Amino acid sequence: MESSDLYDVYETDTPPSWADHHQHQCAEEPDNVECLRRKIKYFFMNPCEKYHARGRKPWKLILQIIKIAIITIQLVSFGLSNQMVVTFKEENLMTFKHLFLKDYVDGGMDTYAVYRQQDVYGHIDYIIEQYGHLHNITVGNHEYEKNGAVYTPLSLCQEYYRNGTIFPGNETFEIDAQVQTDCLKVYPMYHQSLREVLPHFELYFKRMLSVTVTFVLKAINLQTVRHRELPDCYDFTVIITFNNQAHSGRIKVDLENDVDINECRDWKVTGASARSIYLTVLFDCLIIITCVTSFTLCTRSVINGIQLQLAYTLYCRNLCNKKVPMSDKLEFVNGWYILIIVSDTLTIIGSVLKIEIQTKVLTSYDICSILLGTGTMFVWIGVIRYMGYFRKYNILILTLRAAFPNVIRFICCAGIIYLSYCFCGWIVLGPYHEKFRTLNTVSECLFSLINGDDMFPTFKNMRHKSSLVWTFSRVYLYTFVSLFIYMILSLFITIITDTYDTIKV
Amino acid sequence: MESSDLYDVYETDTPPSWADHHQHQCAEEPDNVECLRRKIKYFFMNPCEKYHARGRKPWKLILQIIKIAIITIQLVSFGLSNQMVVTFKEENLMTFKHLFLKDYVDGGMDTYAVYRQQDVYGHIDYIIEQYGHLHNITVGNHEYEKNGAVYTPLSLCQEYYRNGTIFPGNETFEIDAQVQTDCLKVYPMYHQSLREVLPHFELYFKRMLSVTVTFVLKAINLQTVRHRELPDCYDFTVIITFNNQAHSGRIKVDLENDVDINECRDWKVTGASARSIYLTVLFDCLIIITCVTSFTLCTRSVINGIQLQLAYTLYCRNLCNKKVPMSDKLEFVNGWYILIIVSDTLTIIGSVLKIEIQTKVLTSYDICSILLGTGTMFVWIGVIRYMGYFRKYNILILTLRAAFPNVIRFICCAGIIYLSYCFCGWIVLGPYHEKFRTLNTVSECLFSLINGDDMFPTFKNMRHKSSLVWTFSRVYLYTFVSLFIYMILSLFITIITDTYDTIKV
Amino acid sequence: MESSDLYDVYETDTPPSWADHHQHQCAEEPDNVECLRRKIKYFFMNPCEKYHARGRKPWKLILQIIKIAIITIQLVSFGLSNQMVVTFKEENLMTFKHLFLKDYVDGGMDTYAVYRQQDVYGHIDYIIEQYGHLHNITVGNHEYEKNGAVYTPLSLCQEYYRNGTIFPGNETFEIDAQVQTDCLKVYPMYHQSLREVLPHFELYFKRMLSVTVTFVLKAINLQTVRHRELPDCYDFTVIITFNNQAHSGRIKVDLENDVDINECRDWKVTGASARSIYLTVLFDCLIIITCVTSFTLCTRSVINGIQLQLAYTLYCRNLCNKKVPMSDKLEFVNGWYILIIVSDTLTIIGSVLKIEIQTKVLTSYDICSILLGTGTMFVWIGVIRYMGYFRKYNILILTLRAAFPNVIRFICCAGIIYLSYCFCGWIVLGPYHEKFRTLNTVSECLFSLINGDDMFPTFKNMRHKSSLVWTFSRVYLYTFVSLFIYMILSLFITIITDTYDTIKV
Amino acid sequence: MESSDLYDVYETDTPPSWADHHQHQCAEEPDNVECLRRKIKYFFMNPCEKYHARGRKPWKLILQIIKIAIITIQLVSFGLSNQMVVTFKEENLMTFKHLFLKDYVDGGMDTYAVYRQQDVYGHIDYIIEQYGHLHNITVGNHEYEKNGAVYTPLSLCQEYYRNGTIFPGNETFEIDAQVQTDCLKVYPMYHQSLREVLPHFELYFKRMLSVTVTFVLKAINLQTVRHRELPDCYDFTVIITFNNQAHSGRIKVDLENDVDINECRDWKVTGASARSIYLTVLFDCLIIITCVTSFTLCTRSVINGIQLQLAYTLYCRNLCNKKVPMSDKLEFVNGWYILIIVSDTLTIIGSVLKIEIQTKVLTSYDICSILLGTGTMFVWIGVIRYMGYFRKYNILILTLRAAFPNVIRFICCAGIIYLSYCFCGWIVLGPYHEKFRTLNTVSECLFSLINGDDMFPTFKNMRHKSSLVWTFSRVYLYTFVSLFIYMILSLFITIITDTYDTIKV
Repeated sequence: MESSDLYDVYETDTPPSWADHHQHQCAEEPDNVECLRRKIKYFFMNPCEKYHARGRKPWKLILQIIKIAIITIQLVSFGLSNQMVVTFKEENLMTFKHLFLKDYVDGGMDTYAVYRQQDVYGHIDYIIEQYGHLHNITVGNHEYEKNGAVYTPLSLCQEYYRNGTIFPGNETFEIDAQVQTDCLKVYPMYHQSLREVLPHFELYFKRMLSVTVTFVLKAINLQTVRHRELPDCYDFTVIITFNNQAHSGRIKVDLENDVDINECRDWKVTGASARSIYLTVLFDCLIIITCVTSFTLCTRSVINGIQLQLAYTLYCRNLCNKKVPMSDKLEFVNGWYILIIVSDTLTIIGSVLKIEIQTKVLTSYDICSILLGTGTMFVWIGVIRYMGYFRKYNILILTLRAAFPNVIRFICCAGIIYLSYCFCGWIVLGPYHEKFRTLNTVSECLFSLINGDDMFPTFKNMRHKSSLVWTFSRVYLYTFVSLFIYMILSLFITIITDTYDTIKV
Repeated sequence: MESSDLYDVYETDTPPSWADHHQHQCAEEPDNVECLRRKIKYFFMNPCEKYHARGRKPWKLILQIIKIAIITIQLVSFGLSNQMVVTFKEENLMTFKHLFLKDYVDGGMDTYAVYRQQDVYGHIDYIIEQYGHLHNITVGNHEYEKNGAVYTPLSLCQEYYRNGTIFPGNETFEIDAQVQTDCLKVYPMYHQSLREVLPHFELYFKRMLSVTVTFVLKAINLQTVRHRELPDCYDFTVIITFNNQAHSGRIKVDLENDVDINECRDWKVTGASARSIYLTVLFDCLIIITCVTSFTLCTRSVINGIQLQLAYTLYCRNLCNKKVPMSDKLEFVNGWYILIIVSDTLTIIGSVLKIEIQTKVLTSYDICSILLGTGTMFVWIGVIRYMGYFRKYNILILTLRAAFPNVIRFICCAGIIYLSYCFCGWIVLGPYHEKFRTLNTVSECLFSLINGDDMFPTFKNMRHKSSLVWTFSRVYLYTFVSLFIYMILSLFITIITDTYDTIKV
Repeated sequence: MESSDLYDVYETDTPPSWADHHQHQCAEEPDNVECLRRKIKYFFMNPCEKYHARGRKPWKLILQIIKIAIITIQLVSFGLSNQMVVTFKEENLMTFKHLFLKDYVDGGMDTYAVYRQQDVYGHIDYIIEQYGHLHNITVGNHEYEKNGAVYTPLSLCQEYYRNGTIFPGNETFEIDAQVQTDCLKVYPMYHQSLREVLPHFELYFKRMLSVTVTFVLKAINLQTVRHRELPDCYDFTVIITFNNQAHSGRIKVDLENDVDINECRDWKVTGASARSIYLTVLFDCLIIITCVTSFTLCTRSVINGIQLQLAYTLYCRNLCNKKVPMSDKLEFVNGWYILIIVSDTLTIIGSVLKIEIQTKVLTSYDICSILLGTGTMFVWIGVIRYMGYFRKYNILILTLRAAFPNVIRFICCAGIIYLSYCFCGWIVLGPYHEKFRTLNTVSECLFSLINGDDMFPTFKNMRHKSSLVWTFSRVYLYTFVSLFIYMILSLFITIITDTYDTIKV
Repeated sequence: MESSDLYDVYETDTPPSWADHHQHQCAEEPDNVECLRRKIKYFFMNPCEKYHARGRKPWKLILQIIKIAIITIQLVSFGLSNQMVVTFKEENLMTFKHLFLKDYVDGGMDTYAVYRQQDVYGHIDYIIEQYGHLHNITVGNHEYEKNGAVYTPLSLCQEYYRNGTIFPGNETFEIDAQVQTDCLKVYPMYHQSLREVLPHFELYFKRMLSVTVTFVLKAINLQTVRHRELPDCYDFTVIITFNNQAHSGRIKVDLENDVDINECRDWKVTGASARSIYLTVLFDCLIIITCVTSFTLCTRSVINGIQLQLAYTLYCRNLCNKKVPMSDKLEFVNGWYILIIVSDTLTIIGSVLKIEIQTKVLTSYDICSILLGTGTMFVWIGVIRYMGYFRKYNILILTLRAAFPNVIRFICCAGIIYLSYCFCGWIVLGPYHEKFRTLNTVSECLFSLINGDDMFPTFKNMRHKSSLVWTFSRVYLYTFVSLFIYMILSLFITIITDTYDTIKV
């Protein structure tokens, strides 16, 4: 008995008993059997049929629809409120780059580096000077962190090999690989230059691994007042790193920005009513309750299914001396229920986290968004199940479902060839092509090539230094693209077409 | 009876009576029936067949062909004349940016912002100075607006929270969310700097929401003289905004340009004859007349069809005791006529608007262009109808038509998965990827990915801050692309192929 | 009788007589008929079969192969020699831009414009100054043109409306549309500025249409000496235009470079032997001879075919009272011969032009390259003919050939929808999207979209000014892409698949 | 007997004897025949079946799996260790560009050129000055090379035509094509300018071919200390070229960086244990041993196959008087073994080279990486063989295998059309389009177009100088894309679909 038969059965308008099929193989004990048969028949009905058969209202269906609506609303509101925070963080990062990095130009972070000893001192000088004058410079409401009454100082750390004499001219060196860190503190005040503040500060360029400048700035996100939310207080830990680990003569400068969001200690807003967050929390709780209900109902259904399956297996073994094949057994476990259970679990955990975040207990926004996002995604995908109740939609879904194993199987084969190309491209072209530097980018690049993106730039950006490697790269790229686009992608279409023909008949 | 049969019938060379089909089920009352049968038969003929059958000249066909020609001419001439206006507006905008924005570089509008208090004053200063010297600077014919004999002043407005003390250092703030606006007027004259004109002008950076500089410039588009059109007079309202709503330390500067086009008050052109616009208006009227005629004829045909359908339904019910199925009823309403009626309506409204625009009564160019554009599009699509009269072209059109419901159905299913990916991507990747900032760009990005565009940049521009989210993004993108390109796009091809096979047999 | 039958026949190994097919319909007059039958049979044989049948050496085939070889060699050598000229021109253009355009930055030509009166004078000043000092500045061997003993001067022309008073402030103007041109000559010498040379020079900005600076520089392309070719003498006419036709306040500056290549008047090269060009001319003559031969042979074959067809038609009409269908008649005219004739004609004309160019009589390089290029392309496409002699290759070629009419037919239908989208997009989105400015770019943009390129940028670069138009643009783009990629491209695949199945059986 | 039959046979669960098939044609001599039959049967079994049949452990299979694992580990470790070297080289190159090229901006190498005589002197000056001060400038540990006790000097070479008088103004020239080279040596010391060091240095711009500045810098890659590897000593030969070969007024400046890696002469590392490289070398030896074993085993199998084939051929000829067809003969040679043998050979040579590189004997990294990369690729592709043992995977592999000849055949046909487009595009569009400059880029551009990449830029970047060529380019591009995407790519899908249907039945 084919799996597809099973499905066809409860899709026809007058569902012939699925159990019938088995019954005429072992048609004794009418009472018990009839009962089991009817149970199984009922189990495989869809909500509408159940309603027609026994008049049972489709509570579960209604619950799911409500769930989809409120989960989507929650997600959108969460996203929108979060967008403001992200923008504030981003713009502050841009501000810090413009204020503290000398000669910084927008979008030039990739190539922002210093190459001269004098420039390194100049850059550090500039940071200290700007930090000292911050009050008079910034157009935002940034302030130094206060430790009691005094401002917290800026910290300037130099990391270097403890000891070392390096003479590249003689090809000799002596080095102590232990790393030592020296830190200085600079309090914000008006002074002219590094030389004045730290007359004895010196960088040991030959041994230096990095110089790090760290300071904390505070700000308030006033913007939210206009959206009827309470402003939050932000702590920005700005970290500027001069990275000399390669000792290649190029010191890469980087500015990072760690953000800590707190409720402000003392506040007063007049002229507008700042909406409290309790409404949002209430809504989250509603979602949790809905999801728990949905979770319980679906779990019950799954358990029912398993019990029914056990009964059926027992019946088959005892009365018909027949083993129920695995595929039939699996039919009793409805995959859609599993999907709903998973999505409910994710949403419940996500919503709990969300409440914690909004009450400033936690800040793990990433995990929360992944949980909520994945949960919502599964809930939406679950909608397809209801579409399957219409015959014409069903063919398409069934085709995708039936083609799935073959596609996965084929992706495995193609994946091995793909992987072999990845390894080969990485090792050979890596030193000559930006996109082949790491295994990860190789994979992304090849994946893009298969789908017809970025092909000409990939060809073009190959460095033309070794003509052997250059020739290899052409052969590599032409064969890869031809093989994957002309043969493998075509085979995908063939597999789907073939499955569709099988299903349709 | 299949819908496709119906079509095939009146496409064959010797059209067998469509009514025949029904008649032999209820072949009584010869006279009346015969008459109805002939009417229906005639109704479903195409113009050529009608000509052969009754010698009726295909007036409607000729009218449509003429309509296509003149509508296209109108559209092209409208587009060309409008192009000059658009170019003039664009170039003026560029000029204003170069004249009034300090250190402006072409294409740098996205990152054009100020970060220092001194710079804000400097930029405002610069604008006022340039505005004062405009006469001596500009190479175009720009002039200040005159209010009687005096020039209208530049207006400098500051918007700020009415009251507020903000101490981010202590995490305390007190704010009055009411917004107040102070405006100053600066008359254009030669002066050195902001300090001289407005010695007491001050910006409250901590409370400021925005600073707006507004002024009006006038110009004449002389260029049109050379294309034998009368020059128009333009009023440019230049609005320069310093946007500090985020209070993030970054004040975004924006220059906008509202344009108002008028007929000049007094003019004299010698040496060339400026063509009057009456010819164009006349041509527009011709189009309106043509469209009204076409509209009337098509409406009559549709009404005829409905009457015939009613008669046929009556006849079937009374004599054959048979209900006419909905699909047969719909056959009497020719979809192409509906298309023509819609297109005529759009074109008529559009042409009326166009006349208004050209006589400077209205300026709603956008609505007009949408109406005319859509109208012309429908008229052109209508051409396909006439291609359907040739058998070989017909197969293709029929295939597309027949596959349409299935494609729509499938797009629904795919759309749900697509939507679920959109939501999930927005919420999780939004803070880390430029393209996932808003739901709208997420949708555009995913749509582009499906069609094989911008894949590598999407992979690459993901910010590598949280490795959890980064991993999620890889899984998200790889599964999305694989699912949509390898399974869903393949299924589209399968659906079309399957439909084609069905049609062809 | 299907056209494909005809083809199959003479492809099988033991060709059954094609005439047989007809003969058993009218099998009288054995002698004459037999003769005709054999002639026709022979006519439809391929070279190999002809060799086996009558031992005729395949001269024509050999000639074609030789032709392909020498034409390709000619093309490659022409391309390579021309590449050096193109590079020299390009680099000189770059040099002139760097020398004569003030503050010019590589790749910034699109935005190179002036916006201030003072800047216009400054730029003109700079050009004159640089021109005066050219000898001491340039690193190339540029020199002024000499008219006898004196250097030719630089010409500075101002174009303006003859008369005009323009008062945008009052919205009044009076203009004489006649254009007047004033020219000044500046001889190259050491002077400081425009003011000194032309103390009374003034630009009438309000009426000015353009300022043009023109001068001639001479150079010798020494580079060719190293490739054993004779150096040529170049005349560069440099034209710098300040374009103010729009009077929008933006004067676009453009530098163009007309090149004239001559043989140098007097030269002497020692230390290396400069290869004369006579060898190349000789080779071109060889090609002309080959092509003329090939042309003659093919024309003869075509004429033979037509004669045979007439004989056959006559025979059919007289003896069998049967009209030969058009498709059968066309079989006698071999399409490949037509292709060869066309390609020969193009190559002959192209080669003649090439000789003229290389002897510096003509300079119409473009026409020559189009003729030679197209000729070579057709010759190569002709190679496919010989592949068709192998059965397995033939199926593929036949499929493409058989699918061609259907594809063209379908492209017509799709083309109409495409055109309607073009018009609509142009008129509505034109003012808001760079890519929709002209009908030509609209078409290119939509064509790229169909093939999955540049989709995200097209979405993104839509200006977000009017939300109505913005919404329209989304609907427009989504429907366009979906319709074309999901339905129309799929149908292409279906058509090809269907044809293949038909051919294969 | 079809080749596919042969395959099907030993894939079914109960393999019917392949020899059976032949046997009932000549069923005498039971003993000998039976023996041969069983041998052949056994030969075509897969490892699992062999294990079941005779209990032979699948040693070869296990060996291959181990080989895959260790080869991949080797590749990854090689790649990772090499990445550090590549980064060091790259960053040093960037440093040199920033230190020695005047006004160098990141990413501006393509347009880095000088156009004025004074600038050339200025750039050379700058290099010499920077070289003199290097110690005080660089932040890396760069030092001059020492020749005994003195530093090696910088070498400044001018290459020029020995003699020549060039008068472009008169169109006359006299040139001695012999090239002469003058070199100067500048020792690193503190001096102000070129004029002071070399008061008589002069460039003959009109005759000059190039100026080359060469010097050697030494550095130590300390970074590796932190990854527990020994630091290497680097010799950077920096070559700065002022290229004036075109004499076009543009002197292209280029900086190249030849790297030589040595073991340092004398070193001492404390505080961390630098891992010796002997472990890596040992691992390489292990791989060589594994590969040699695998090579031997596979060669034996291939030889066995050939012997068996000879026996079978002999048997057929002698006893059945039947010639064994070539395709049957080839079945005895297992293609997978050939693949493994090739991959083993590549890996062995590659590993030997790798050992040499790591012990600083050789530096031919490119060849080594190509050998190792290709070897690993083949090993991975070999994995597909084992997948073929599962029936469902096998269909896919067989489809690809069976479609391969047809695809190749079709690629030939398409390739000819492709080539003809290449030639034509190169010759006609070359001078007007960056991407059509060389045959190589033409091919890459067209290949990208077929796969839907870079279409709009290709359309757009066409220079609009000659409208004839511009029109040609549109026709060229539209026809090319339509032909290849709509017809040829569709045919690929058709071929694969057709093959799949054949295989599946």
